[in-house]
Amino acid sequence: MTIEIDVRSAVPSALPAAERRARLPGGFLAGGLAAGIKASGRPDLALIVASGGPAAAAAVFTPNAFAAAPVRLSRAALAASAGWARAIVSTSGCANAATGLAGDADQARVGELVAGAFGIDETEVLHLSTGVIGTRLPLDRVAAGIDALAPEIAATDDGLEAAAVALRTTDTRTKAATVSVALPGPDGALHEVIVTGIAKGVGMIHPRMATMLSVVLTDATAAPDLLASILRPAAARTWDQLSVDGDTSTNDTVFLLASGASGASPVGVGTTAASALAAAVEAVARDLARQQAADGEGATCLLTCQVSGAADDADARAVARAVISSSLVKAAAHGKDPNWGRIAGAAGNARLADPPVLAAAGMPPEKAFMRGGTPVSLDPARLRIAIAGHLVFDGAAGGPEAFDRAAARAAMQGDEITIRLDLGLGAGAGEAFGCDLTEAYVVENSEYTT
Amino acid sequence: MTIEIDVRSAVPSALPAAERRARLPGGFLAGGLAAGIKASGRPDLALIVASGGPAAAAAVFTPNAFAAAPVRLSRAALAASAGWARAIVSTSGCANAATGLAGDADQARVGELVAGAFGIDETEVLHLSTGVIGTRLPLDRVAAGIDALAPEIAATDDGLEAAAVALRTTDTRTKAATVSVALPGPDGALHEVIVTGIAKGVGMIHPRMATMLSVVLTDATAAPDLLASILRPAAARTWDQLSVDGDTSTNDTVFLLASGASGASPVGVGTTAASALAAAVEAVARDLARQQAADGEGATCLLTCQVSGAADDADARAVARAVISSSLVKAAAHGKDPNWGRIAGAAGNARLADPPVLAAAGMPPEKAFMRGGTPVSLDPARLRIAIAGHLVFDGAAGGPEAFDRAAARAAMQGDEITIRLDLGLGAGAGEAFGCDLTEAYVVENSEYTT
Repeated sequence: MTIEIDVRSAVPSALPAAERRARLPGGFLAGGLAAGIKASGRPDLALIVASGGPAAAAAVFTPNAFAAAPVRLSRAALAASAGWARAIVSTSGCANAATGLAGDADQARVGELVAGAFGIDETEVLHLSTGVIGTRLPLDRVAAGIDALAPEIAATDDGLEAAAVALRTTDTRTKAATVSVALPGPDGALHEVIVTGIAKGVGMIHPRMATMLSVVLTDATAAPDLLASILRPAAARTWDQLSVDGDTSTNDTVFLLASGASGASPVGVGTTAASALAAAVEAVARDLARQQAADGEGATCLLTCQVSGAADDADARAVARAVISSSLVKAAAHGKDPNWGRIAGAAGNARLADPPVLAAAGMPPEKAFMRGGTPVSLDPARLRIAIAGHLVFDGAAGGPEAFDRAAARAAMQGDEITIRLDLGLGAGAGEAFGCDLTEAYVVENSEYTT
Repeated sequence: MTIEIDVRSAVPSALPAAERRARLPGGFLAGGLAAGIKASGRPDLALIVASGGPAAAAAVFTPNAFAAAPVRLSRAALAASAGWARAIVSTSGCANAATGLAGDADQARVGELVAGAFGIDETEVLHLSTGVIGTRLPLDRVAAGIDALAPEIAATDDGLEAAAVALRTTDTRTKAATVSVALPGPDGALHEVIVTGIAKGVGMIHPRMATMLSVVLTDATAAPDLLASILRPAAARTWDQLSVDGDTSTNDTVFLLASGASGASPVGVGTTAASALAAAVEAVARDLARQQAADGEGATCLLTCQVSGAADDADARAVARAVISSSLVKAAAHGKDPNWGRIAGAAGNARLADPPVLAAAGMPPEKAFMRGGTPVSLDPARLRIAIAGHLVFDGAAGGPEAFDRAAARAAMQGDEITIRLDLGLGAGAGEAFGCDLTEAYVVENSEYTT
């Protein structure tokens, strides 16, 4: 039996399609190289610089109490500059988390080095880092790397690709996505505006009001407040719906920078241009989140859950997240086992966050998506579940469906398994992105530091 | 360097030691057999009957929206009887969850059969089930099993052992714990009161206000309200602190029944006897929770986290749970890798539940232990972490400690790994119980239904 659930509303059809390449928007220079932070000798230092002056900037960060030095320094820099930035520096192989005051001093020194190299202020430098927690940055290597990289960064796609490569830790693939939109300029003519994101993310991924390391650049002209108003809801529907292993990192960060180099007019609040820019940012965010989920540590497939018919979108997102976060669902996905009972059990555990958490994290007081918190509205007698296109449970028809198990197993092969739930209660819809749980995840994470 | 953290307060030293055997308290009959529910032919039907009349009863159940038929029927029975019960019937191999109205009817029929066999009311029968979600009970086999088992249940330890064996699904070990306390009788003499628990639990274990299947029996004389006042806080400190894989089951249930057969006087609220009984119940609960954690699916070791110095006990329990629930910490435990950065990261994510959830679950509005919810009080600069006796992080001393990694690895071998955290903030203490994450967990759960 094929799927009868209408899940069109679960997928944001209004989003433009993203292309998976590192296309550099105007007004930025970028590059990356191997500074020797990683023992492997792979690229580990990236620089992105706004060449025409400060770019408007917005960010979301991890709420982890052990927020790393680069997170705290970036937060302070954005507060000091009121949302403007000239440079992003990223180090990979060392998270500079849980390193105490010495780690803070190290990161501040990185900021000084970058500021010195480009003649800008330290408060205009944003920081990213990822890697092992609790180890100190090798400052001498980072300094030498900045010296070598600063003159080489370029306004080219290759430069941005090099930066994306240098973000990686155990990522098996470089992650990038780009969308362009046409926005009117002061002359009335349309100008191409590019929105491009690069990202890394493999383990310790269970973003909450934040994400793993992701950078989205655009040459649109937009004020920091507008960028923030675009970034937060986009992250709530994309990165916040991503989980690899249920662990929220100490270093999760996403930056959105706008250089204003496209020639298009400043994007005003509530305008058609703002909607177009928001859709482009969300399309890039969604594509990066899918790439991050697919490349989860040890993963062999992307696990997507699309939920429709919820009381509201927050409920739908909570259910989708609960399903793709379940270790049992993830293991069943790995075994290509249409074990819908685990999906029902996971959906039954879905919880919303409580408002204080949202407020503390600087989020608008909308309902959100976490485990723990208020239960979502869910009635088993109205729920329908489909796995890879096979209807397996229909609450209104008594529950379990007699489905073709062999056909369902066959449909679960491949790069992506889609689980669809219709709650039969309302118009709320949402989706979440995860991956299967494999022996390789366990092996990889049993031996990491030693 | 050996551990310098004082964690005496993290372990409830006031609890009596539990003995791991199925010692049947007075006033109960018990037994188990293979009714053919499990394809393996292993024991899968258990009966426990209060032989001298109704026993006072208390229970906590899963908050899963897909609560199974036996959970809903037990809840209704306890409401109808105002907290009294004559029998517990347990079926293993089939969860009777997500089976709709037909499943409800099946479970009601089981209640009729048990009530008929013992000449009691259906509202005096409590139900447990565990196994695959979404499959119907084989009623004919269950009926034949009840017919065969009813005349064979006995007031013997062997009978209770047989019941404990029949609770099991993929458990590798039968789980039982017993404690006895001396309570005064009406004659002023001391009477031995036995508290014994049996339990099962391997996967889909992440209790919230509830637990996996556990039954605690005592021959104390106590009213239902007193039992409830003992069971809830005991569960909050034991089963609610247990996680195998982060998935809260549809069937989680713990029953506490008191037969009154010991000859001791009725236990009054606020008395020394109540404290002694509560300590006995908690000791049994704690030991069973440790057995359940150690026998987690695929587990090779028990993973315990003891937290002291928290702002309050709820904070301590939340931090302990966050640590033992982390996939990355669990994988590191499997690799005997003293990767304290993951412990710090997990502790930094610890969250308390929000009051509405507690209220909805019928819990007192104390703070609790879930991920999601309000962050706990945690200051990295005051935190100390020890793994298997080795101090690895001391926030007040700058953070990472130079510890002997090889010695720490060696200390992590064995049946139990203890992680200790002192938050350096207050007198709050708590612990949590988990297990390592292994390739075997993935293998076992990749192929379960098919």
